[in-house]
Amino acid sequence: MDYLHWFDLLGIAVFAITGTLAAWRKQMDGFGVLVLATVTAIGGGTLRDVLLDVPVVWMNNNNYFITIFSAALVTIVLLRRRMTIPNNTLQFFDAIGLAFFVIMGTQKALDHGTSYFVAVMMGTMSGVAGGMIRDVLCREIPMVFRGELYAFTCIFGATIYILTQWAGASTFIAMLIGISSLLSLRLAAIKWQ
Amino acid sequence: MDYLHWFDLLGIAVFAITGTLAAWRKQMDGFGVLVLATVTAIGGGTLRDVLLDVPVVWMNNNNYFITIFSAALVTIVLLRRRMTIPNNTLQFFDAIGLAFFVIMGTQKALDHGTSYFVAVMMGTMSGVAGGMIRDVLCREIPMVFRGELYAFTCIFGATIYILTQWAGASTFIAMLIGISSLLSLRLAAIKWQ
Amino acid sequence: MDYLHWFDLLGIAVFAITGTLAAWRKQMDGFGVLVLATVTAIGGGTLRDVLLDVPVVWMNNNNYFITIFSAALVTIVLLRRRMTIPNNTLQFFDAIGLAFFVIMGTQKALDHGTSYFVAVMMGTMSGVAGGMIRDVLCREIPMVFRGELYAFTCIFGATIYILTQWAGASTFIAMLIGISSLLSLRLAAIKWQ
Repeated sequence: MDYLHWFDLLGIAVFAITGTLAAWRKQMDGFGVLVLATVTAIGGGTLRDVLLDVPVVWMNNNNYFITIFSAALVTIVLLRRRMTIPNNTLQFFDAIGLAFFVIMGTQKALDHGTSYFVAVMMGTMSGVAGGMIRDVLCREIPMVFRGELYAFTCIFGATIYILTQWAGASTFIAMLIGISSLLSLRLAAIKWQ
Repeated sequence: MDYLHWFDLLGIAVFAITGTLAAWRKQMDGFGVLVLATVTAIGGGTLRDVLLDVPVVWMNNNNYFITIFSAALVTIVLLRRRMTIPNNTLQFFDAIGLAFFVIMGTQKALDHGTSYFVAVMMGTMSGVAGGMIRDVLCREIPMVFRGELYAFTCIFGATIYILTQWAGASTFIAMLIGISSLLSLRLAAIKWQ
Repeated sequence: MDYLHWFDLLGIAVFAITGTLAAWRKQMDGFGVLVLATVTAIGGGTLRDVLLDVPVVWMNNNNYFITIFSAALVTIVLLRRRMTIPNNTLQFFDAIGLAFFVIMGTQKALDHGTSYFVAVMMGTMSGVAGGMIRDVLCREIPMVFRGELYAFTCIFGATIYILTQWAGASTFIAMLIGISSLLSLRLAAIKWQ
């Protein structure tokens, strides 16, 4: 399941970009960019791992940081050249990253023996908590509190994932169904919002 | 000591209500309500458990979330019907919940071998940290920094509890004395403030 | 290496003073002062220890709290008498505390088997995260995001420390070199900024 790691890094990269954009808007300096890119990208997963009391995922894998710093660097270079990342493109990749984070986070909670209910919560937290910490550090009320559809899409996807597994599907099939449900709903929301 | 769990859930419910009220005042949506109700109710205990490195209390007990979500739902329904929860009633139950959280938090720290001093701190944290996180997420300076009596009541109650135990009382007697000292001081503060 | 503990407490005291000053500026009450002094002083180390999943450093050592509360008390007494702590003096001791926190934090991460890269990050976090939490609780954008030199000095010092060790120096020599590099750069920044 090595390709899973690539999806993970894709999500990390996109979340790092949104952190970089937030830092840029607030006219922060280089260190602010690094911190915001990092907490947005790994904040949700880190909180999940600390609460589950398992080793945090990035502790022994530098790929996460290489991805985050590269994404932040490329974003800053583009911004300085007054090029912009089209909002649609960003939202599209964000949806992929989000779907992946939520379903993987749900599974990780289940792996550690939580109830279905707590697993849905942990999955959703994996998807949205990084952005919440980003917003708090930017002195904003978390964006996800103002546009509830984003968060409820996560809850929906995690629930579908668990129901599919509960109905007897293999983890792999359930993942495919969970991720594509979440992704479809999110893309529909982006299109018709 | 099963009835202890009921007091715990009472505290959880009242704290969830204050979180819901904060989200309502900031015009947050449904997800904001859920998150604020949850972090207010279990934020303090969660932080305590993470610092003590013990499993977080709600990980394997859905009663916490059933209580939180029911309390949030009832509160929202009441608010929409323009009914209000009388402030006195809320403060009364908040005082009960607070007294219970602080003394139980202090005991939990002692159970894990902390010094008396750290136990008082952990007990106080169990009582006030959830509200602090709520206020940060609402982009407010924590309320507890502005009305110090609330926090010092916690420190007082936890200290009485430890002194009573240290003087030789059983855990049960010490709890009764600790909780009623904290509760009396808090109710007096509400009445004469 | 008992004298290391004294440097540690010096850093704790200075960081507690900056927390107290922040609380004073925001006209917080006694409890606000205690909390801000405490999180500024031990927030970075606590976050590091939670992420490394090792017991938090102050859990079984009351010296930390005695130091923090004494520092906060003396600061408040001075402020009430309208005496001020000269900014230069404060920055000087802050630089010593910072140098010490960063290098010790880096070593602690290495002791627990992290990569060099994560160790630099953990060291930097030990130095700056307490101040970040302080600023968030004061409803400010973290200061360290606006004056990047402070944070990059930490990254620089931690890197020098690791390179020196990697080049074959003993831990003691590497510490001396790491701390004095960080300290020199910081003092130079204070002087010529």
